[in-house]
This record gives sequence, C-alpha cells and structure tokens, in this order.
Amino acid sequence: MNEFELIQKFFTRSACAQGGENIFLGIGDDCALLQIAREQHCAVSTDTLVSGVHFPENAPAFLLGQRALAVATSDLAAMGANPIGFTLALTLPELSTQWLQAFSEGLSTMALRCGIPLIGGDTTSGPLSMTVTVIGAVLPCQALVRSAAQSGDLLCVSGALGAAAAAVPLVLGEISSKHLSEQSLEQLLNAYWSPQPQLALGQFLLGKAHAALDISDGLLADCGHIAQASGVSLHIEQERVPVACAAQQLLGVDAALQCALSGGDDYQLAFTLPATQLLTVQQAFPTVQVIGRVCAGSGVHLMDRAGQVVPQVYSGYQHF
Amino acid sequence: MNEFELIQKFFTRSACAQGGENIFLGIGDDCALLQIAREQHCAVSTDTLVSGVHFPENAPAFLLGQRALAVATSDLAAMGANPIGFTLALTLPELSTQWLQAFSEGLSTMALRCGIPLIGGDTTSGPLSMTVTVIGAVLPCQALVRSAAQSGDLLCVSGALGAAAAAVPLVLGEISSKHLSEQSLEQLLNAYWSPQPQLALGQFLLGKAHAALDISDGLLADCGHIAQASGVSLHIEQERVPVACAAQQLLGVDAALQCALSGGDDYQLAFTLPATQLLTVQQAFPTVQVIGRVCAGSGVHLMDRAGQVVPQVYSGYQHF
Repeated sequence: MNEFELIQKFFTRSACAQGGENIFLGIGDDCALLQIAREQHCAVSTDTLVSGVHFPENAPAFLLGQRALAVATSDLAAMGANPIGFTLALTLPELSTQWLQAFSEGLSTMALRCGIPLIGGDTTSGPLSMTVTVIGAVLPCQALVRSAAQSGDLLCVSGALGAAAAAVPLVLGEISSKHLSEQSLEQLLNAYWSPQPQLALGQFLLGKAHAALDISDGLLADCGHIAQASGVSLHIEQERVPVACAAQQLLGVDAALQCALSGGDDYQLAFTLPATQLLTVQQAFPTVQVIGRVCAGSGVHLMDRAGQVVPQVYSGYQHF
Repeated sequence: MNEFELIQKFFTRSACAQGGENIFLGIGDDCALLQIAREQHCAVSTDTLVSGVHFPENAPAFLLGQRALAVATSDLAAMGANPIGFTLALTLPELSTQWLQAFSEGLSTMALRCGIPLIGGDTTSGPLSMTVTVIGAVLPCQALVRSAAQSGDLLCVSGALGAAAAAVPLVLGEISSKHLSEQSLEQLLNAYWSPQPQLALGQFLLGKAHAALDISDGLLADCGHIAQASGVSLHIEQERVPVACAAQQLLGVDAALQCALSGGDDYQLAFTLPATQLLTVQQAFPTVQVIGRVCAGSGVHLMDRAGQVVPQVYSGYQHF
C-alpha cells in the first residue's frame, strides 16, 4: 500500500472525515474550502504532539489519535468558537497498517464527539509527531479572549483539576496503581488520554464571560496569561480550587493540589465572569466553580485559608 | 530566554507577523481570528518539512524559513486563493538564538513577498521539523480544483520545470557545481530554496482556467491527479515541456528532462484552459506554455516527437 492509498483508506474514507455542513470541499485537493457564516470570524489554532516529549514512544495509537485532536480542539472551546474542521500533519517512522487503523479510530472517536471533521493534511516520514490545526467560527465581538478580564470579575474554572497531571506517572509506568479503585484509575487515564474540549460551555459563555482560556500549561501559569493580557491581577483562594478526587487517591492531598495548580493537560476552561452571570452559568454547567476574583494590579496571587499569600514554586511546563 | 520570550522575540514581534488587513486577532490568544469577506470561502492547506527527509540536517535556517512557507503558500496559489495568514508549528532540538534569528528572517522574507502574515502556532522540543498551515480566501464557484478539467482543454504549465529537482544533488553536496556559471548556480539553488508561489497567476486564472494544481510531486504524477479527479486523460507532448536551462547545464539534456517530468519542488502551476483563453493568459503571464491537451479516457500519456507514447519509469516521490 503506497502513501496515497494509505491516506485514502485510513483518513479520507474513515469516520474522521465524515460530516461537516460547512465543508464545501474536503480532503484531496490543494486546499480544503470552508464556508464561514456571514458576520462570523474564522478561528484558527495549531498544536503539536511529539513522541518522547508529549507522550511515551510506545503510546497506544488509538489514545494518541484522541488526545491530539482533543488538545487542539480545546482552543476553539476557549474562544467560544464553533468547530468547522481540522487538518492533520502526521509524521511517521514507518507505515504500519495496524498503528494507522488504531490512530484513525481514536481520531474518529474524538472528531465525532467534538463535531469536527478532518478536511486535509500531510503525511510524511520521520520521527513520530502530529500537528493538528483546528478551524472554527465565532461572532467576532463575542469571542472569549485572554485580554478582556475586568477588575471585579469572578475567576472560575469549568471543573476539577489535576487528574491529567496525576496520571502522567501512571502513563509513564513510574508508579503503581494497585491501591486505586478501577473507577479512579479509569478517570485518571481518561483525563490524560481523552480530555473533553469544553465546546458547549465555551459557546454558552459568549456574551456572558469576559476573559477565557483553556488550562494547558497549568492553572497558575495560565491565569498569569490572563492577568498579563488584561492588565489585572488574579487572586486565587487555594481552598476553592477543585481537585480531582482520583488524583488525591493516587498521590495524596498535597501532591494532588500541586497537580491542580501547576499541572496542565486537563483542558478545563478558566474564565472571568461578572458576578451577575454566575447563577445562569452554574445552572447550565453545575461543575463550574468560583476560585477567586479579578482585581487591579498585576500577577497571580494564591491565598491560603488565612488570606496569606502562598509562595508559588512552579510556573508551568517549559519546553527548553 | 524561555519559550515565551523566544516566541515574542523571533515571531510575535518580527516582520513575519506584520501586516494582514483581514486579521482581527493575531498571535497570543487561544486562536487567531480572521475576517473572511462575505461570499468567499476559507481555503486551508497544511505542509510539513522534516529534517533529513525534506532537507539536509545542516540546512541553513534562513533558507528553511523561506522554503517552508513557500511550499505551503503554493497550495493557495493553486486554488486561486488570496492569502490571509499562516500558522507555524516548529519543533526544535534546542534553543539556538542564532538559528531562530536566521529562520525568522527567512520566514519574514517569504511572508512579505507573498503577503501572508504569521497568525499563530506552537513551539515544541523534539527532532527538527516544521508544519505550516496556510489560510486564504477565494470565491467558491471560481476556485481552481483538480476535478474540473474538460476534454478539449489545453494543458499548460506556468514556467520552466526541473531546476529545483536538479538542485537536490547540489544541496546535498553530492555533485560539484564547478562547471556552472554563477548565474545558473544561483537559479538552481533559488529554485530549490526559495520557490515563488504563483499567487498572481492563480488569481488571474479564476474564471478562466478549469482545473489546476501546483507541481510538488512531479509533472507526470501531478497531472495524474488531475486526470483521475476529472475523469479524463492528459496527453503531454514531451518536446513542449519547458526544461530549465540551468538544469540542462548541470545535468545534460536527458537528465534535466527527467527532472522536469518527475522531479517535484518547482511549485509551478499546471492547469487546463479552454483554448479561447490562451492569448489573454499568455499576454499577462508570458512564461505560461502549452504542453498538451485534455482528452476523453484516463491516465497521463507522454508523447515523443513522432507521436509515440514514451514509457514512464517514475511516478513521483513516495514517502514510504
């Protein structure tokens, strides 16, 4: 099977390329052609996963397919954008039909879950890596940007944090999961391998929230991005940060809290909200929790129960 | 300098990110936001270059920056699309400010030449590779697709072929360029490292040409894509295929012809045109040449001077 037949079999004709009412021309030409509704803007984001850096070299292909697409699509959720399609640049050390079958199935599962079909890409030989570029549409004046936080806003997160970061030593086989319940183990591994882009919440927040982003570098580091872009300070009450129970079971309360504060990879949303909107948002999305507030000033300030500033020892993942 | 400062210095604030009247929100948020004019479609294409596969491991960073963007933007030209912006996913084995400075300058040079600014991306550590995703806009019913060739059309190319493929052994240091004039050497290396996306021609062909693509896999292989997508046969007169003079000087007439027929990388356009449009197109773009015609049937048929079919021995680059 040559390169073209491979693309046909595992991508063009597979479930990941199905659907998409805004796709005028899909895979197979020099470009895909997309219909963006009048008055809407086209939202674009790119994410790369590299073998041995973002995932173990022997990672299961099905899970990789899921995660690669989820991580990228989460950026559309963070803007409140409606997914339209994605391209996949896949670099493979060898052509394994078994690997491609599983990868394509993982990709399809996430594509169907997020309603975002494959519209094109590039397949090359080389060290294993994958770059996904997602395209969405959003009303320009409503898009959730990092720079729109206002002093007085509540700071919220979309759900419990820390599970994906806690799962990393399990994924790497560094620690044992023997003392965990099967349910907790599944929760942790799902959080890492199959994060759920918060698309419905992101779109619900249009016209309600001020600033938003998805937590990929870690809560504190990402809140730092909002604070800097908006020219405000964010005050986080450590006690109100929702920590994933399964992470506490695996690592204990203190280490799980560190995962929630500094581990990325959960792809929950952090956003700032006028207090008047809180009830409406929590009624529709009960896992949303207030963890702090937006003030004048600069930086991120983590407070303990007594209102004292907690020193921050870690500021997100650095590639170099 | 950490990852964020690096992106700021060499990408966000560099010339490659400047300009772009359709960019509502550029680098620095979860997504870029682009304005697509009413009635236009959004054209999207992705291309990856991998070290040791698409370019030598010690390739000059400036040239890589130029080439990575040119190769991807050429797909917009092939659709007749107007460039809007591009994302860059850059995977680097180490942070070298010298390398990044040169790469960013090469990228900026091509970005300014093509009128396509950087709108976002991802920087990761790992084996050197780069994925560029280009976004453009085009009127949907005019976009140049592979499937629109009609029996009776002329088959044209936008200019001389074979220079980029002939340059490969020079780029790899496999042969000497001692017998070449300085001008020919420069032409060959430019053809490889700094191909010029045929954006103006692509847009001029809207409403005139039927099918089009950019020649990246080789003339014969790419004409095969048009023939298959359109359900027609393409008859190419070997003698009319314009071969780059510098390629002939380097390799001799026969080997240069093989480069023109089967070597990719020139990123000239191949397109099919009703005969009534030829004069208009050639007046505006004098390098355009007719090399054959579209007939009923299937496949690509290369003819010699006597009208005999020439056996084809090579069918384009295969990654695996």
